[in-house]
Amino acid sequence: MGDQEKTKRIIQPRLLKGFRDSLPEDEIPKKAIIAKLEGLFSSYGFVPIDTPALEYTEVLLGKGGGETDKQIFHFADNGGRDVAMRFDLTVPFARFLALHLNELPLPFKRFHINKVWRGENPQKGRFREFIQCDFDIVGLDNSEADYEILSVMHASFAAIGVENFHFHLAHRGLFNQMLAHLGIAEHNTEILRIVDKLRKIGTDEVREQLMALLASSEKADAILAYIEKADEDEPFLTTLSRLEELGGGESEHSIRMRTIYAYLCGAGIEEHFILDPSITRGLDYYTGLVYETFLTDLPHYGSVCSGGRYNDLASLYTKEHLPGVGASIGLDRLMSALSELQSPIAQAGSSADVAILNTAGNFTACDLAGRILRSEGIATSVYLAAKKIAAQYKWAEAQAIRYALISEDGGTFTLKDLRDKESWQGISATEAATIIRKEHH
Amino acid sequence: MGDQEKTKRIIQPRLLKGFRDSLPEDEIPKKAIIAKLEGLFSSYGFVPIDTPALEYTEVLLGKGGGETDKQIFHFADNGGRDVAMRFDLTVPFARFLALHLNELPLPFKRFHINKVWRGENPQKGRFREFIQCDFDIVGLDNSEADYEILSVMHASFAAIGVENFHFHLAHRGLFNQMLAHLGIAEHNTEILRIVDKLRKIGTDEVREQLMALLASSEKADAILAYIEKADEDEPFLTTLSRLEELGGGESEHSIRMRTIYAYLCGAGIEEHFILDPSITRGLDYYTGLVYETFLTDLPHYGSVCSGGRYNDLASLYTKEHLPGVGASIGLDRLMSALSELQSPIAQAGSSADVAILNTAGNFTACDLAGRILRSEGIATSVYLAAKKIAAQYKWAEAQAIRYALISEDGGTFTLKDLRDKESWQGISATEAATIIRKEHH
Repeated sequence: MGDQEKTKRIIQPRLLKGFRDSLPEDEIPKKAIIAKLEGLFSSYGFVPIDTPALEYTEVLLGKGGGETDKQIFHFADNGGRDVAMRFDLTVPFARFLALHLNELPLPFKRFHINKVWRGENPQKGRFREFIQCDFDIVGLDNSEADYEILSVMHASFAAIGVENFHFHLAHRGLFNQMLAHLGIAEHNTEILRIVDKLRKIGTDEVREQLMALLASSEKADAILAYIEKADEDEPFLTTLSRLEELGGGESEHSIRMRTIYAYLCGAGIEEHFILDPSITRGLDYYTGLVYETFLTDLPHYGSVCSGGRYNDLASLYTKEHLPGVGASIGLDRLMSALSELQSPIAQAGSSADVAILNTAGNFTACDLAGRILRSEGIATSVYLAAKKIAAQYKWAEAQAIRYALISEDGGTFTLKDLRDKESWQGISATEAATIIRKEHH
Repeated sequence: MGDQEKTKRIIQPRLLKGFRDSLPEDEIPKKAIIAKLEGLFSSYGFVPIDTPALEYTEVLLGKGGGETDKQIFHFADNGGRDVAMRFDLTVPFARFLALHLNELPLPFKRFHINKVWRGENPQKGRFREFIQCDFDIVGLDNSEADYEILSVMHASFAAIGVENFHFHLAHRGLFNQMLAHLGIAEHNTEILRIVDKLRKIGTDEVREQLMALLASSEKADAILAYIEKADEDEPFLTTLSRLEELGGGESEHSIRMRTIYAYLCGAGIEEHFILDPSITRGLDYYTGLVYETFLTDLPHYGSVCSGGRYNDLASLYTKEHLPGVGASIGLDRLMSALSELQSPIAQAGSSADVAILNTAGNFTACDLAGRILRSEGIATSVYLAAKKIAAQYKWAEAQAIRYALISEDGGTFTLKDLRDKESWQGISATEAATIIRKEHH
């Protein structure tokens, strides 16, 4: 292909449906939120791991059913292997545990924040590439581990500056106990699937579907009585006692919930936790505590952090029994919620605190001023050409950079606060640093 | 499939050839290095972006040739689209620039640290999934932008604690000027390809290949005289004058190099920069300054950070002329080098500073102690079960956690430094925090 032909052909720079670029105004707050969460997880002794984007399809689909199959990106690689892109972080974690069990200290507390891919049809707010944030404790089946995941969830939302949130808790074991008490334990899975749709299809439709399954209005009503909270403000322990009664009395499950609640009270964070038996979580693998997280000011966002206890996560890959408890934050949904709440962390718009504008044509002086400001902890972007000053201001403002430091003849500078238009003339870079730090803190 | 059958079938938890898990002992230092680099780039006003892992194959391969084609993971997605996983961060950046040009402030300084995938045959230290770290300045063709990339490279290596490194610089324009002076400008690309192999095949073989191409021993020797430095310690400006002469005199290219060197001197960092005309960089798209980075103590690692000036990056996707200059750090190679150098940042082995061990059976007291330590900025992992104390110590030591805080009857604690075995008894969590902070700083 000759050079002339080359210059003629322009490839349309388009993106695949359901995929997005992340521009600086999205990427800066995303990184800020991830850094906060990573810091918080680390402060609790959770350690990071990563797994490959591609795995053997057989390994990833071992757990999934027919639904997942159509949703994943899979293909034959150059070596003819059937490979797939990971569609969540749970299945790779199970495989990871089985492969590295001898190298990991149990109980193992880990977090994993990275991209996953699903081929599902993109809807508003749903994409084919998105970031999951998972954290789990593996190797224990007790109320202390259950509690600590809840405690980390609570601390995570506090860390990113969200004030009004509630965690809705339920317990699979308590629900099953109630079904057993009604003599319908064998319909466990189907009933869970129906009940899980409560928010979507409403009480009447759920009742109808339960009737169709159980052929008993009495039993359908008993299930509805269990999952429906008469009073939103019913205290945690009152609800728990009521559920205990509907299940035929105290059990290891109700004792577990009571202990978890006592720990929440011990930490003084119990007011954020609601016992809500309508929470079921569709997935089969949960066996105990389950939970969802709602933002009080944005209930229509649905749950922004969900999870629960699973008592045999890695059983597809190992005979080792590995109980665990964990949660997953939908980072993209959380980010749009934070943006809608005008949360400060979602407003982070600029990397630099100061733009150095060069009008005197003395680049080295500007560069040295940048070095001085950076050494004082102030992020500084130097404008790298002696263009018209108006263009340089525009450039700083387009990036939401707050201060401009303009070089003067003779080696001094003018500092301008681009927000409130205050300015200081004839100063050195060190003096500028002092002013900026005073204003900032 | 019945439950019994399910438990019988164990899927081998294997990884694909050329792919790796990242265990905490790898992931913790990797995140520490990335955080340092991101902090450094941000301090210079560079902003982060991200692009999708998957793009249209046509969009990604527009730039590549036959070689790249075989190396990339590409397939037909469920919608029949020909899609590919990105194999570098440069091509997606070019596409990104063309798509978002109206939304970006020029000059645009960006960084991008993320995974790329190549189907090439895995060798020692080479993988099919690896992390690239790119930073670029787009929208300027001048010595200030060239200098700033070099300045950021220098500051990056200093930030991660590497002490002995050298940047080898060359200039494509100067090289081409020399070829034009010899009257062989039309063989530019082939000559570059041959010369680029100097380190691999040696002077004699390069001479032979040049002879075969040019049928002139005089011209082959002139090229060798240009690329071979007689004296490793030849000063930058002496080399530059020699290259100027071999190219027939001063030119815009030699003036550019002289100005860049003056800026490096202005910043006081010139001793790290060597003018090394043997650096050519194989890729066609470089048009000016090119560079590679070598660790003085580990020369066999080859270049750990390379790049250069390209004067029309996005020409495949837009008619807009977009000059730029950038560099790419091979993070995996850098990490193994740092590990071999026993660099402190590569030794970071644990998330937590303290493990709280529970022997008194009072979980709430342990949990509260954890909260107190965390509020003092001390990362703390609570052991979540009342197992034998020996197992709890083993758990802390396996994670390289330095301190153990052991609950005593009566609500006090014993603090133990697991490294030097010093211990403090009968203290409160707050007192423990004070001791740890004093020892740490």
